[in-house]
Amino acid sequence: MSLNVTQKILKEHYVSGEMTPGEEIGLTIDQTLTQDATGTMVMLELEAMGVERAKTEASAQYVDHNMIQADNRNPDDHLFLESAAKKFGLYYSSPGNGVSHPVHMQRLARPGRTLLGSDSHTCANGCMGMIAMGAGGIDVAQAIAGEPFYVKMPKVWGIRLSGSLPDWVSAKDVILELLRRHDVKGGVGTIMEYYGPGLESLSAMDRHVIANMGAELGATATVFPSDGEVKRFLKSQQREEDWQEIVADDEATYDIDDEINLSELEPMIAKPSSPGNVVPVQEVAGEPIYQSYIGSSANPGYRDFAVVADIVKGKSVASGLSFDINPTSRQMLSDLVADGHIASLLSAGARLHQAGCNGCIGMGQAPATGRNSLRTTPRNFPGRSGTKEDSVFLCSPETAAASALTGMITDPRSLEMDCPQVSDPDEPTIDFKLLEEPLPPEEAKKVELQRGPNIVALPDMEPLPDHIEVPVILKLGDNVSTDDILAGGSRVLPFRSNLPEISKFSFEMLDDTYYERTKELEFSKGHAIIGGYNYGQGSSREHAALAPRYLGLRVVIVKDFARIHWQNLVNFGVLPLTFTHEEDYDKLEIGDALHLHDINEAIKEDKRVPAHIKGKDNEIYLEHALSDRQVEILQQGGLINWIKERQESKSR
Amino acid sequence: MSLNVTQKILKEHYVSGEMTPGEEIGLTIDQTLTQDATGTMVMLELEAMGVERAKTEASAQYVDHNMIQADNRNPDDHLFLESAAKKFGLYYSSPGNGVSHPVHMQRLARPGRTLLGSDSHTCANGCMGMIAMGAGGIDVAQAIAGEPFYVKMPKVWGIRLSGSLPDWVSAKDVILELLRRHDVKGGVGTIMEYYGPGLESLSAMDRHVIANMGAELGATATVFPSDGEVKRFLKSQQREEDWQEIVADDEATYDIDDEINLSELEPMIAKPSSPGNVVPVQEVAGEPIYQSYIGSSANPGYRDFAVVADIVKGKSVASGLSFDINPTSRQMLSDLVADGHIASLLSAGARLHQAGCNGCIGMGQAPATGRNSLRTTPRNFPGRSGTKEDSVFLCSPETAAASALTGMITDPRSLEMDCPQVSDPDEPTIDFKLLEEPLPPEEAKKVELQRGPNIVALPDMEPLPDHIEVPVILKLGDNVSTDDILAGGSRVLPFRSNLPEISKFSFEMLDDTYYERTKELEFSKGHAIIGGYNYGQGSSREHAALAPRYLGLRVVIVKDFARIHWQNLVNFGVLPLTFTHEEDYDKLEIGDALHLHDINEAIKEDKRVPAHIKGKDNEIYLEHALSDRQVEILQQGGLINWIKERQESKSR
Repeated sequence: MSLNVTQKILKEHYVSGEMTPGEEIGLTIDQTLTQDATGTMVMLELEAMGVERAKTEASAQYVDHNMIQADNRNPDDHLFLESAAKKFGLYYSSPGNGVSHPVHMQRLARPGRTLLGSDSHTCANGCMGMIAMGAGGIDVAQAIAGEPFYVKMPKVWGIRLSGSLPDWVSAKDVILELLRRHDVKGGVGTIMEYYGPGLESLSAMDRHVIANMGAELGATATVFPSDGEVKRFLKSQQREEDWQEIVADDEATYDIDDEINLSELEPMIAKPSSPGNVVPVQEVAGEPIYQSYIGSSANPGYRDFAVVADIVKGKSVASGLSFDINPTSRQMLSDLVADGHIASLLSAGARLHQAGCNGCIGMGQAPATGRNSLRTTPRNFPGRSGTKEDSVFLCSPETAAASALTGMITDPRSLEMDCPQVSDPDEPTIDFKLLEEPLPPEEAKKVELQRGPNIVALPDMEPLPDHIEVPVILKLGDNVSTDDILAGGSRVLPFRSNLPEISKFSFEMLDDTYYERTKELEFSKGHAIIGGYNYGQGSSREHAALAPRYLGLRVVIVKDFARIHWQNLVNFGVLPLTFTHEEDYDKLEIGDALHLHDINEAIKEDKRVPAHIKGKDNEIYLEHALSDRQVEILQQGGLINWIKERQESKSR
Repeated sequence: MSLNVTQKILKEHYVSGEMTPGEEIGLTIDQTLTQDATGTMVMLELEAMGVERAKTEASAQYVDHNMIQADNRNPDDHLFLESAAKKFGLYYSSPGNGVSHPVHMQRLARPGRTLLGSDSHTCANGCMGMIAMGAGGIDVAQAIAGEPFYVKMPKVWGIRLSGSLPDWVSAKDVILELLRRHDVKGGVGTIMEYYGPGLESLSAMDRHVIANMGAELGATATVFPSDGEVKRFLKSQQREEDWQEIVADDEATYDIDDEINLSELEPMIAKPSSPGNVVPVQEVAGEPIYQSYIGSSANPGYRDFAVVADIVKGKSVASGLSFDINPTSRQMLSDLVADGHIASLLSAGARLHQAGCNGCIGMGQAPATGRNSLRTTPRNFPGRSGTKEDSVFLCSPETAAASALTGMITDPRSLEMDCPQVSDPDEPTIDFKLLEEPLPPEEAKKVELQRGPNIVALPDMEPLPDHIEVPVILKLGDNVSTDDILAGGSRVLPFRSNLPEISKFSFEMLDDTYYERTKELEFSKGHAIIGGYNYGQGSSREHAALAPRYLGLRVVIVKDFARIHWQNLVNFGVLPLTFTHEEDYDKLEIGDALHLHDINEAIKEDKRVPAHIKGKDNEIYLEHALSDRQVEILQQGGLINWIKERQESKSR
């Protein structure tokens, strides 16, 4: 049978389920990637799971998100992550080394492997002929512990590339064109697989750009073949031995067929405030800009900076414009210095920032209120820049550079110069310090976790009791989001490694007495929450399940759940139930004592769970949609206990 | 009569008072410097004063402090400052250009001139044969408006330098040695003037290092002669025509005599948490370090970075160490790139940050809790790094580099290598974009101030009324500090350009009902505050006078005042009085209605001001210590009105 690249890789990693689009499958995970913003919780979870050492081929902990260090919390996190990487046998990339995705690509990515990362742009490494997926922190912890990752089998969306990119048009324009065509949900439930003769003109780093922003289409992953260009890239990184060819069979088919003729593309731009809001640059040319921002995992290549340098060389950016250069890694910065590109950028008026994610995730370089900011980053959701009333455009390095010179949005084709011809270097600097190797097991065992005052170990979670008698303490309406449950932002996020502290913010947007009331119940007595439709929509933030669980949440009963939050509740040992008869929603009030009996038996044997409302002489029927695996997880008190048990039984 | 350099410059700028140490003198100001953290208020004051255009030879607005841009407030401030610079005819240095003091030195400093800056390290430019002084924002606004600056005539502290610096010892060690000898108050009331044969071996930038940290000794200013080295420096900046020789007469004398033999110095280090806590590096060698931080106006020279680069060249810094490089300016960074020094630093493992003040003023790069941080910056007060429980050492670039390699505090003389011999370049890159020239008057008139949502114009202040009848709404004890009156820190400071908002924080540390109670009085009805000894000690923050004044404060009656806050009260139109009989403090209570009549006459004619406490049938006697000039300022409702009146009368 003829297979495409996606099928070839999945076949090698498949452990359970039906390989039919929409059905849950289990996949073995070869590599993991965590960054600092999500990684501290993953490390606390590994500790709580009793994991001694990563079971993966390669797991790496990067520090690239929170590097401002406005106070002790960022650097304390860094030291904690460094100690955790040593203890658990992970690679460690210290602050200043660079952005996780391109560094991973340079040092660890291997064709044919699976990669799971606690960062939504993990998909970028699909450029290397891998299945690379973003996931929640505890999913990654689970993978590090050697467990499979469960995901709904996606459709494979084959995108045939033909032609070659014209002057002034680059990889970013390819993915912006796809976003123009299909918008931000166009890739949901798919793996985007690129093939065809157009690949010839796309370097591995160009493919990284395209794979990275598959996340913006909502795709589960993006896959490129592992061809001669991947071989060239690995050779340039002195890792030729890690290459293997993986290309689609001649007769391979796809669930969805699509095509892009690269020769017909023109410079594209995503207007505020969605990556799907794409138009040709020409359409908005002439709008004044305040900032031109170069960098991020969406344009991380040497060429992405070198082409900008060549465009501005010998000129000056527009007066008053903030021209922000964010190098990808120390290694790449060294090459850009050596080749004179940094000199060109500085002389044109650049602000050169440290290597890292920086402003791409709102960590500095926020634009002035209402002023237009052009960025080569992947996202322009409102406020993501750090400025509430922002106006962020996404574009290619060529467009950002041309616009920096004129002070207004400019189609680079209108510049009176030849298009710079730049390739990634064939013999780049290799900075082996970018990743510290895992410690040998005997040394790792001696490492103690370095916990700053804001890093608090996760508490033990009890198994699901057989009887639950708890008061209802919140009754909520429809469409409660994870932001309502636990806000993000700079006020709350610094406590992400401190469950007792972050829990205090739970539900404060909806009912600011929630925390106090759970405290009066001494947390341990437990409580229930009632909700309407689409409960837990929005961000996949696992703290939205973990924090209320810490405060004693045992049962959530709603009309229906948003998928990821539902999964997170299970993972943290909270029983997620729906009403069999939706009208029963009206029967439950705050203060009611809810009684569920013989639960362990009930959820194992049936989809239906009976419940009494004490004193009201009412029996209501509730339901669950848990798989057998999930029932087991829940019974043990959540995924941490479940893995812990498996770790222990394996070591017995 | 033989004169020293200080006397020569003062003589040319003296306008009033007695040139006797301790007496107030008035000096004309040739140049001013403002940075962004203090500059927004200065610009609002210029606007409120009705100043149309700077009257100085050169006034420059720098953006170097708040460049993290975590949200809209920093970049909104930058745009406001840019527009204000254009409107008022100032030079403007945009974010990324570099640190104010060295950039001012390169572009504008001129021997024989006076410079007043709203930054305590303004004294650094004393290296150029200038009298350069830090001052409060409104003092600088006043100077920009063409008014003299009033200061107590300092003693001149002559420091004769002999010998020359040994290998591995540099300018930082000279000023650390003075701090070791005299501690952080050793220079109060003095101008430190350096002379003697040892000057030969100190470059202009070395002298900048020494002059900069005169601030840490509490000196009013530091003065170096304008000699051949200053000529060489100006020539290298293509400004030879700005040079004039100013050296002490052969027979010149000093109020205080001191001497340092440079040949006898060794590497010094200031231990946590005071710049005066100095010991030889040897004494603390071997202590583990977490961070080595290079940069700031206390070590801004090309050589300060190049020598570090040469020390670490071809090596790697200790594993886990944060090696933070903070370039002084874009121009200097270009030279360091061109000469291969940035390559050496990166290859050793540096984190290269944008040019600016950055971590020196707690804007990023905070160290981990309790970990030792070695810095070439001027201050290590507790928490200044951004981390509350910090442990910051101050040292030379040589010591910081040697310690970075070993991971522990290291005397650079113990390195097994020859001491790098580096000089500042004789033909450095000249980046003319570092300072934008003032707009011509006709264009400046058209400029409108760009006010972001957090930048609010200052309100009009009424003149002193003849009768004041106000309630006492706070009665405080001894030693109330300006931090008690209005806190600093990241919660409050972002509102520094927004008087209505920042006022809400007034006195909250002592009585959090203060704001609400002033609001009930509709601010305009006014109120009085009673205090004990040493009222208003601590930081010179002018908001501590301005914010309560905005809320209606008209009179402060205390046992005695701290000097700067007393001056600030006058500047913002608040009548500062002391009890003639201290026991009258006990007669006044919160809620008492205080009645002062015929005040204008009273303060002009006499030092004594009678007051009634209504309903108590009590007359108490109060006193003021205002000069005639200050009486006039107060009568007009503060310095802003006073200048405004003078501006208008001049233009009539």
